[in-house]
Amino acid sequence: MRTPPTLLSLTIDSALNNFAHISDISFLPHHILLELFLRTLKAGKLNERILRLFAATGKEEILSVIEALNIQHNLVPVLPTRNIRDEEVDIVVGALQPDLTSFMEEWRPIFSRFHLIIVKDPELKEDLKIPDGFNMDLYAKPDIDRVVGSSSSAISFSGYSCRYFGYLMSRKSYVICIDDDCIPARDSNGYIIDAVSQHITNLAAPATPFFFNTLYDPFREGTDFVRGYPFSLRNGVDCGLSCGLWLNLADYDAPTQVLKPDLRNVRYVDAVLTVPSRTMMPVSGINIGINSELVGPAMLPAFRLVKEGKLRWETVEDIWSGMCVKLVCDHLRLGVKSGLPYVWRKERGDAIESLRKEWDGVKLMEDVVPFFQSVRLSQEAVTAEDCVAEIAASVKEKLGPVNPVFYRAADTMVEWIKIWTRVRGPSRVQTQ
Amino acid sequence: MRTPPTLLSLTIDSALNNFAHISDISFLPHHILLELFLRTLKAGKLNERILRLFAATGKEEILSVIEALNIQHNLVPVLPTRNIRDEEVDIVVGALQPDLTSFMEEWRPIFSRFHLIIVKDPELKEDLKIPDGFNMDLYAKPDIDRVVGSSSSAISFSGYSCRYFGYLMSRKSYVICIDDDCIPARDSNGYIIDAVSQHITNLAAPATPFFFNTLYDPFREGTDFVRGYPFSLRNGVDCGLSCGLWLNLADYDAPTQVLKPDLRNVRYVDAVLTVPSRTMMPVSGINIGINSELVGPAMLPAFRLVKEGKLRWETVEDIWSGMCVKLVCDHLRLGVKSGLPYVWRKERGDAIESLRKEWDGVKLMEDVVPFFQSVRLSQEAVTAEDCVAEIAASVKEKLGPVNPVFYRAADTMVEWIKIWTRVRGPSRVQTQ
Repeated sequence: MRTPPTLLSLTIDSALNNFAHISDISFLPHHILLELFLRTLKAGKLNERILRLFAATGKEEILSVIEALNIQHNLVPVLPTRNIRDEEVDIVVGALQPDLTSFMEEWRPIFSRFHLIIVKDPELKEDLKIPDGFNMDLYAKPDIDRVVGSSSSAISFSGYSCRYFGYLMSRKSYVICIDDDCIPARDSNGYIIDAVSQHITNLAAPATPFFFNTLYDPFREGTDFVRGYPFSLRNGVDCGLSCGLWLNLADYDAPTQVLKPDLRNVRYVDAVLTVPSRTMMPVSGINIGINSELVGPAMLPAFRLVKEGKLRWETVEDIWSGMCVKLVCDHLRLGVKSGLPYVWRKERGDAIESLRKEWDGVKLMEDVVPFFQSVRLSQEAVTAEDCVAEIAASVKEKLGPVNPVFYRAADTMVEWIKIWTRVRGPSRVQTQ
Repeated sequence: MRTPPTLLSLTIDSALNNFAHISDISFLPHHILLELFLRTLKAGKLNERILRLFAATGKEEILSVIEALNIQHNLVPVLPTRNIRDEEVDIVVGALQPDLTSFMEEWRPIFSRFHLIIVKDPELKEDLKIPDGFNMDLYAKPDIDRVVGSSSSAISFSGYSCRYFGYLMSRKSYVICIDDDCIPARDSNGYIIDAVSQHITNLAAPATPFFFNTLYDPFREGTDFVRGYPFSLRNGVDCGLSCGLWLNLADYDAPTQVLKPDLRNVRYVDAVLTVPSRTMMPVSGINIGINSELVGPAMLPAFRLVKEGKLRWETVEDIWSGMCVKLVCDHLRLGVKSGLPYVWRKERGDAIESLRKEWDGVKLMEDVVPFFQSVRLSQEAVTAEDCVAEIAASVKEKLGPVNPVFYRAADTMVEWIKIWTRVRGPSRVQTQ
């Protein structure tokens, strides 16, 4: 037999149902108040007005529960997630091959909602083939020369770096960029995965760089912060960069490809996480989403290998740029996320051939990583431009003597900031 | 029509097939040497003897390729993974409920390979019910009193802390510990997941705390280090702690349970990652694997809430202990992994009731986390015991004035180290 409800319990039920007509609860004894508060929470009935009623009681237990639960007066929206509209997003594609037909057709169901910026590799001679039906702007060498100049000291936008010209020309707050040898991945039911929407979700929800959440992204449906996660850190911070991953051919370097020619990534890890503050990572430019307003100037085509090639494993421009962005995000208290979305990366190039050409990229990382792990920015650096200027000065001082390629990178970073400010105007100051 | 092979290519094919009979290749021109080396790699024919032949040429290109690929002379085993035998592992179970029958039966297929240590919560009055057929040692209050003493100043092993007595009595290098309200999770085919083997795998393979690998554990079958990961960091370091996760009822705190009573974790994230160095995390004691030789003394029953309960969300002992271990691992250059394996966590307790009892755990984290994020240990601390002693001194100095519970924690830590050294002897000195 069930125990019959107590009078207190019935009274509380009744109060819950009639909260709309109650304007003062401060006369209630505090054990009843606490009971009522917990039942209100459990029933999902806590709103702005009722919260004020409880706060107005001035009772210590109630106030400390409100504080410990980190209940904020402005309860709507519950999650501090931005709402990003399609019109705020540019898709940037660097065209390293002339025929984009199959690439664009594969992405049509996803890309057609957005404005596209396609930048043709200035070293590509053939005309581009792009199917109709997209809302897009196309940029090529004459545009680059017009905006940036064509002098010998100018920044090079050839190869994968052409995409940076797209970031510069974008007028949107968010930029998504996917390499032209990738097509949408498919889920286990064969449906294509909308990588763009996932990047937007990653950029819209807060990041949590100051403490690790073992259940990954706490803002994702079906999960939360685990026991022990400080409530004061649960609001999170803005996300500056979203780094997606790759199925099939993953982003390995040429030596790894040579050693494991049959290695293909088949594991779909259903997670997004914030890479912790002060942890450096290899950002791949293959599949990324950028909060351009916050960190745009730190995505820069600064680091060019002497024998840079047209294959991903013959470049480190994105790795360098990623180190800069990560450092900027750490300094400005922004987050960098990694994980979903996946894209399907097709085969391209011969790793053995790449090994013959170029070893510098792999060797230089041994100096690049410790540098970025140790450099610290000043409190005066409050925008991404400020940060990049300070990083450039440190690169020149600390890395320049190691290899002249670093002097050139530092000069290019300074030049990039000038161009960015001229073309796009200054970045938002962080106020967190 | 295919291009016919060149004479050089045929010669190299022939050399590859006859490497066993070749004892000197130093007379070859270096472009042929490089070609031969790359083809040898690709054919999977590089072994210790052939590597020595290439190294003996003294040619700059070859040596730098060998260096950049981080090819080591001792090629077998390729991965620096330990081989952990079943005899080196203890399973420790803290019995908080008297009837372990269904728990043990569920785990029988997995646990029966190992030696078990079961520790009865000293506050539990009833006799334990444990099914036959296990290789196990059982400890209860009289054993604790005999080994540790029963004076009022002694460490309390009641509640979840009873498991720490099991760590102390274990003579094995590795300890796996799973709460008695968890059963094996099942994969999508309904087969039970062997959480113990996964912990052993995590502890056996190196950890990579100094740089983030976007494809998670690089030592796992089917994956590797991504482009940009410095080769000098690819050997990794020893893993000190493996933190598993939970399906069904995840390890949330009581406020989160109250706010989202229907929240269940159904997402199986197929990944293990190293939590980066200097990143703090909430270690849950529900499902963990420990390298006892390396970090055993840092797993300690030191932090007891004034109103600690018998439900996970009424405790923070494991969170505190986890902060200690993470700090110790960071200092000693060891790794902490998080992710697989999952266990299925059953319902237990009423979160609303817990909220009524106790708020301290949640509030204290606001002081605990910044403390552990900022404390640094001295170069003289070379064992886990040294580290714990230094942490205890800092706790007393920095946290003690905030709340007396921290003074008690510091004293208990000092006491624990004494007992550990007396019962188990000193830990291994880190030589990395």
